[in-house]
Amino acid sequence: MGKLVECVPNFSEGRRPEVIAAIAGEVEKVEGVTLLNVNSDASHNRTVVTFVGEPQAAKLAALNACAKAAELINMEQHHGEHPRIGATDVIPFIPVSEITMEECVQLANELGQEIAGKLNIPVYMYEAAAKTPARVKLPDVRKGEYEGLKTAIAAPERHPDYGPAKMHPTAGATVVGARQFLIAYNINLSTSDVNIAKKIASTIREAKGGFKYCRAMGVMIEDRNMAQVTINMVDYTGTPLHRVFETVKSEAARYGVNVIGSEIVGMVPLQALIDTADFYLRFEGFDRKQVLEENI
Amino acid sequence: MGKLVECVPNFSEGRRPEVIAAIAGEVEKVEGVTLLNVNSDASHNRTVVTFVGEPQAAKLAALNACAKAAELINMEQHHGEHPRIGATDVIPFIPVSEITMEECVQLANELGQEIAGKLNIPVYMYEAAAKTPARVKLPDVRKGEYEGLKTAIAAPERHPDYGPAKMHPTAGATVVGARQFLIAYNINLSTSDVNIAKKIASTIREAKGGFKYCRAMGVMIEDRNMAQVTINMVDYTGTPLHRVFETVKSEAARYGVNVIGSEIVGMVPLQALIDTADFYLRFEGFDRKQVLEENI
Repeated sequence: MGKLVECVPNFSEGRRPEVIAAIAGEVEKVEGVTLLNVNSDASHNRTVVTFVGEPQAAKLAALNACAKAAELINMEQHHGEHPRIGATDVIPFIPVSEITMEECVQLANELGQEIAGKLNIPVYMYEAAAKTPARVKLPDVRKGEYEGLKTAIAAPERHPDYGPAKMHPTAGATVVGARQFLIAYNINLSTSDVNIAKKIASTIREAKGGFKYCRAMGVMIEDRNMAQVTINMVDYTGTPLHRVFETVKSEAARYGVNVIGSEIVGMVPLQALIDTADFYLRFEGFDRKQVLEENI
Repeated sequence: MGKLVECVPNFSEGRRPEVIAAIAGEVEKVEGVTLLNVNSDASHNRTVVTFVGEPQAAKLAALNACAKAAELINMEQHHGEHPRIGATDVIPFIPVSEITMEECVQLANELGQEIAGKLNIPVYMYEAAAKTPARVKLPDVRKGEYEGLKTAIAAPERHPDYGPAKMHPTAGATVVGARQFLIAYNINLSTSDVNIAKKIASTIREAKGGFKYCRAMGVMIEDRNMAQVTINMVDYTGTPLHRVFETVKSEAARYGVNVIGSEIVGMVPLQALIDTADFYLRFEGFDRKQVLEENI
């Protein structure tokens, strides 16, 4: 299917339907791009748009949506629960198929320069596209939010990576970057003891010495009277699904508990399922092009 | 991606490139169809064309290719090692996505009627589209080949399902039907004793009390000094990959032998890999639409 990138821009508007429709419309009308989802939250006053497309088409869609947001959103009047620094708050690119993270970083840099050059909005690069370790994490880049950054941006250590060291008068600033696809993954246990789920979660999460690309919590699913390990797989190429599944299965056995099932919440890239089949069936030299549908 | 069917017509010409190109060209020029492969064998004097497409487009491509073969191939002058009864020898439809076997049977019947009505070629329906048990297997339908069928066709039990009970003077007769996708699958063993592979193969194949949709043999891979179970999975929806893999692993262990790997030879439908991940990760309620690429 050729090079394909996902883009998930977040906009600081979750209440005015006509503004949301105008921004999403900019994405939809670019050829070579498929709009997958528009998710608006009124209390956050924020909209998350998900689309996929050929890299240059995706970049154009992101730029046009960002320009529309700058035109229709005034950060001086924006209030909401979610942290933000601009009308277009953050734009991550995510590799989907036949594209490397390095290419997504390059694409993010091109977009950052265009947003700065054409729209006069200061741009910070984050995650895989960060220029310094201090800008890898989004909360660090967003420190002080829109209101605080208006003065903080003048300090050399807060200067943007592209564009003026001065907030856009209505659109603020924007964060652009590249990251891996996030898979929301739950593993269900044959116990109603949430403490077992919590203990297992602590063994697999990075913060406690577990897998580098794994965030995990133990929770109780009340309506099934069942404990669950709920997981964010933040880089399935580094920490694959099967490794987390097998580790949870093994840790659960230590308590005499079985894994009764697992759930993918939302989307999963095809490659993560191919990697799973590859591991369990011990494939030798399997090529993604052998998937019939990949040739269409 | 919508309803998708694969079609793998076999033509009785494997030597004249211009004839092969003309037949494949008829497929290629139909909108909504993707030509995947053209495989010609000179000693068989036969060409296998593989394409996928939307059902009605695939049917049109098959009809046009069949008409072109009837125009350019004269069975009176055809010689080759492979059994055959007509210029277009056999046309199977194979469900790929969002289409049932019943719909493929219906499509095959429509094509059979069109070939009979428009080209005046007698048509036999086989496999899932067979009208009687005696016509399920291709060798049974092809009995006597082109030369023998010229007289045999007059007997009521050999009358075609559609069209005249008389061979087309140059194009002969054609077999049309529907079957499942065939996955060629090898499982490699940590032994150089081919007898172990042969014993394992006999436990999984239908003929010896094994899996209904499994053909298997034990062979020696000389250049790796390794025994292999080589398998044709003739219906992965009835006998899935994981079940065959796990059974071979378990039977091999009985001889102190391990499975060191497995290979998919050629194409595999995406669904077979999803089914594999679903089994091993014990998915609850996974929907194919959750595969990101399926939404594009």
